[in-house]
Amino acid sequence: MNDRQRLEKQFDFIREIDKEKFIQRQTYLTDGVRKENDAEHAWHMAIMTILLSEYANEKIDVLKTVTMLLLHDIVEIDAGDTYAYDEDAKKTQREREERASERIFGLLPDDQKERFQAIWEEFEAGETAEAKFARTMDNIQPVMLNAATDGKAWEEHGVCLEQIMNRNKNTAKGSEALWDYARRNFVEPNVENGKIKN
Amino acid sequence: MNDRQRLEKQFDFIREIDKEKFIQRQTYLTDGVRKENDAEHAWHMAIMTILLSEYANEKIDVLKTVTMLLLHDIVEIDAGDTYAYDEDAKKTQREREERASERIFGLLPDDQKERFQAIWEEFEAGETAEAKFARTMDNIQPVMLNAATDGKAWEEHGVCLEQIMNRNKNTAKGSEALWDYARRNFVEPNVENGKIKN
Repeated sequence: MNDRQRLEKQFDFIREIDKEKFIQRQTYLTDGVRKENDAEHAWHMAIMTILLSEYANEKIDVLKTVTMLLLHDIVEIDAGDTYAYDEDAKKTQREREERASERIFGLLPDDQKERFQAIWEEFEAGETAEAKFARTMDNIQPVMLNAATDGKAWEEHGVCLEQIMNRNKNTAKGSEALWDYARRNFVEPNVENGKIKN
Repeated sequence: MNDRQRLEKQFDFIREIDKEKFIQRQTYLTDGVRKENDAEHAWHMAIMTILLSEYANEKIDVLKTVTMLLLHDIVEIDAGDTYAYDEDAKKTQREREERASERIFGLLPDDQKERFQAIWEEFEAGETAEAKFARTMDNIQPVMLNAATDGKAWEEHGVCLEQIMNRNKNTAKGSEALWDYARRNFVEPNVENGKIKN
């Protein structure tokens, strides 16, 4: 493969992932009106990682963690966003996302396909220091936005504290300090004011 | 300052930059309907940098370049997006953006404020290998999207080739190979089909 063919594959991928900007999540932005999309979510978490890596339980490779967060929702271009509290959709999530990973990362030259798929799989497995921290970001960022919009999304979905605590049972694995802060400042006040059912 | 106060400053900044998701650019997304916002643009370029750093003229620090691209439009939260071909707005751009940098990065703890401001200034100066490559990304990404939407934004704004070449006079400084590819594959076909005025 010459440089031109390699660049064509790379730009095929770059054009394809533009679709991530159309994948809507359940989280409201700080205006409380528009919902966030996957690309915005990834951008926000990448900056959060650069700012907050000092609180990681274990030392992390920041570039690898940022790469993981920038990429980890690309599979949703085919598989769609699976809402954290939609138990039916979660049953087929893994299979849908694996097919998507094959197709979308498959647009890239082989070496980059393998590298990006490996990073995505590492995120999914959640076992390395980087994956644990990335998952902490992925859990805390929407909690922060939900708190910033007075719990609007929690209220609309009738979310209860048990669901949030269950969803966040691994959040402290990436950073005790950040989950502690998020729990006290974002979750607890919304239990007190009734936006999260107790 | 204790950890809790430090975290409060960091999360004040993290909440504030949510506003970047509302700053609309002039570039259409690949659907040719909705225009891109700054956060989406930054996310896209960060992934492009990770994929395309092999084409940099000089070896770059990828994390630093990605950080630069994730951050560089944050000043537009106060200063607004200045369209590449709006000569009047460009006269006051620097002053508006400096004030914005002081206020927004000023929400952070001092060490991080200084670090982020320095990275933003480095991007603006465009002299280091990272800043040159980041500017290559910042110029090529909208050209790629404009080509993917059959030159819609170029046509609407009546953009001519001379303006594009002038805007891109430094694009090759970050990567000869990428500017060469973009010129041949994104610009020239749109001159031929009349979407860019010659």
